[in-house]
Amino acid sequence: MGSQTIYFQKKPKIVAVSTVAGQKECAGIIGRYVENALSDDMFGESTYEKAECKMLSYVIDGAISNAKLKREQIDMLVSGDLLNQIISASFAARDFSIPFLGVYGACSTMAESIAIASALVDGGYCKRVVAATGSHFASAERQYRYPLELGCTRPPQSQWTVTGAGACLIAKEGDGIEVPCATFGKVVDFGISDVNNMGAAMAPAAADTILAHFRATGENASDYDLIVTGDLGALGSRILKDLTWEKGLDISSNHVDCGEIIYKVIEDEFQGGSGAGCSAVVLNSYLHAKMMTGGLRKILFVATGALLSTVSAGQGESIPCIAHAVVLKRG
Amino acid sequence: MGSQTIYFQKKPKIVAVSTVAGQKECAGIIGRYVENALSDDMFGESTYEKAECKMLSYVIDGAISNAKLKREQIDMLVSGDLLNQIISASFAARDFSIPFLGVYGACSTMAESIAIASALVDGGYCKRVVAATGSHFASAERQYRYPLELGCTRPPQSQWTVTGAGACLIAKEGDGIEVPCATFGKVVDFGISDVNNMGAAMAPAAADTILAHFRATGENASDYDLIVTGDLGALGSRILKDLTWEKGLDISSNHVDCGEIIYKVIEDEFQGGSGAGCSAVVLNSYLHAKMMTGGLRKILFVATGALLSTVSAGQGESIPCIAHAVVLKRG
Repeated sequence: MGSQTIYFQKKPKIVAVSTVAGQKECAGIIGRYVENALSDDMFGESTYEKAECKMLSYVIDGAISNAKLKREQIDMLVSGDLLNQIISASFAARDFSIPFLGVYGACSTMAESIAIASALVDGGYCKRVVAATGSHFASAERQYRYPLELGCTRPPQSQWTVTGAGACLIAKEGDGIEVPCATFGKVVDFGISDVNNMGAAMAPAAADTILAHFRATGENASDYDLIVTGDLGALGSRILKDLTWEKGLDISSNHVDCGEIIYKVIEDEFQGGSGAGCSAVVLNSYLHAKMMTGGLRKILFVATGALLSTVSAGQGESIPCIAHAVVLKRG
Repeated sequence: MGSQTIYFQKKPKIVAVSTVAGQKECAGIIGRYVENALSDDMFGESTYEKAECKMLSYVIDGAISNAKLKREQIDMLVSGDLLNQIISASFAARDFSIPFLGVYGACSTMAESIAIASALVDGGYCKRVVAATGSHFASAERQYRYPLELGCTRPPQSQWTVTGAGACLIAKEGDGIEVPCATFGKVVDFGISDVNNMGAAMAPAAADTILAHFRATGENASDYDLIVTGDLGALGSRILKDLTWEKGLDISSNHVDCGEIIYKVIEDEFQGGSGAGCSAVVLNSYLHAKMMTGGLRKILFVATGALLSTVSAGQGESIPCIAHAVVLKRG
C-alpha cells in the first residue's frame, strides 16, 4: 500500500497565528504566549456555543490581520470543532466570505486542517489558507457528558476540555514555519469504552501514526526537537511512550503532550487538558513562539482525536481514535 | 480575492463507483441503477446507526472491488455523514486499514469529498482515494427531528432523508469520468430558520456557488448537459432557478435535483429526497451510468448542505448553508 506520509515539495509556511484562551488556560505556562486571554469564559455571549464560535471567528480574523492581510486575500478556510455538525466552525465561516471546507477529526482537527491546507497551497490550488479549530469546556461537557449544573464528580482518569481556539495562516509566500510533510492517520480502536479515559483510548492511534511516520521518512526521534501530541494527558502520554518503545522507538526524552502542559496542576482536571482547542492553543501560542525565537527548530505535531459520539457510546461501541501528524520546521 | 474554482491539470478520474439504497429509494427511476438494493432498511443490524455505517462500509468496499483493486492499494478514504461526530464514517473507517480524512459538509459531503480526493490525486499526494457518504432516514429523523415512534405529522415543505450510500474511487490512472475542476462554496445564510424547509434554506448557497463557478470558468449553462444539485427538492429547485435567473444565468432547461428525481411521488416525502445519501446515490448510480453509456457527457454536480444542529436551531439561529461543485466529464 501507499505511504501514509505525503511531502510538500514547495514547503508551504505558517506565516501567522492567533490564539484565544480562557482564564484557567492562561493561568499556566502557556498563558503568557496566548494572544488574547479571556477574562470571561462566555466572551460576552449568551450561550457557551456562541462563545465557542466567537473564539473561532476571533482567531481566524487574528491570523489574517497578524499576517497583515485582508479577508479577501484568503482563498480557503479549513475548520472543524467538537460540537454536533461542527456548528462553531460553520457559523464562524458564515461571518467570512471565504470558501469553507468543513472537517471533522475531533481533537485531531488542528493537524488535519494544517495538512489539508498545506496540500492545497503546495499543490498550487490556493495561495493562502487559514486552518483553525477550538473548543469550550462548558459546551463539550454538556454535549458529551453532563450539564455542569448537575455538579457531577469527575473520575481521576478524566481530562478537562480546553476553552480556547487557535488558527494559523498557511501560505505559499512569506516567512514562517515550514510544513515539509504530513502523515495521515488510520482509525485505531483498542476496545476502550470508558468515555472518561480518552487518553488511554487515543494513545494507540498516536503510536500508530508516529510509527508510520518514522517508517516512511526513515528519520529517528532524535531528528526532532520535540514530538508533541495533542491531548493524551498524563496517563495517555505514559501509554504512548510505552507502546512506541515496545516497537523499538524511544520517544521518552523528547515527547511532550499539549494536554499535560497546558494547566497548572491545581484543580480537578486530573490528567490534563483535552479538546480540539488544547493542541490548537498550545501550537499556535507557546510552540509557535519557541519555534520563531529559536528554542525549537523542528517538531512533529501529532494531534489525536476520539471519534465517538454519545449515541455510539450509548449503543455499547468502543472508542475509535485517530491521529494526524505534521512536521513543522523553522525555515 | 482568489477564485473559488480550482483546476485539476492532471485530470483525476472516477474509475469505479458503488451504491446501496433502501426499498423506497429503489422503487423509483434510479432503482434499476443502484448496485445493491436493500430488502430491509436495517441491513441486518440492531440499530439504524449501525445500518447506516454498514451501508457506508459496503459501498467503500464495493468501489474498491469494482475497480478490481484491494484495500491495501487505496491511499486515503475521505468521508463524512450527517450523524453527530460523523460516527458512520469514523466507524466505517475503523474496518479499513486506510488513512482517513473525516469531513463535515452535511448533504454537500459527496461533492466536498470528491473535490478533496481529486486535489490529493491531482497534486501527486495519493494515487487512489475513495470518497464516500451516506444517510439513513431513521437515524436522521431521530437525531434532527423526532423519534419515528412519535408518528409526527410532516409539513408539506419537508423532504425525506434518503436511506442509502454511495462511493467513488478517484485515481490518477485508469478509465473513467474525469474531474477537471471544482468550485468550493462559501457559507450562505438567508435567514431561514424553518428546519422543515431545507430546500429554501439551501437554494441561495447553491446559487452562490453556481454563479461563482460560471464567473470563474467563463462557461455558460449550455456547456453542460446537466447542472445537478444535491437535495434542494422541488421547492428549493424552483427557488434556485429563480435566483440564478435574476443574476442573468438561465439554468432552467438543464437543471435537475437529485432529491426531486429519486422518489416515485407516492408518499409523504413531499418535496423529494434529502440527506448526504441522496446525491451520493443518484450520482454514483443513475448519473454515473448515463455518463458511461453516453447519454451525458459533461455535468456540474453541486451538492448542497444545511449546516445547522439541533442546538443551533434551539438557540434561535437561522440555517447557514453551503454548496460545493465539481465538474464531471466523460474522458
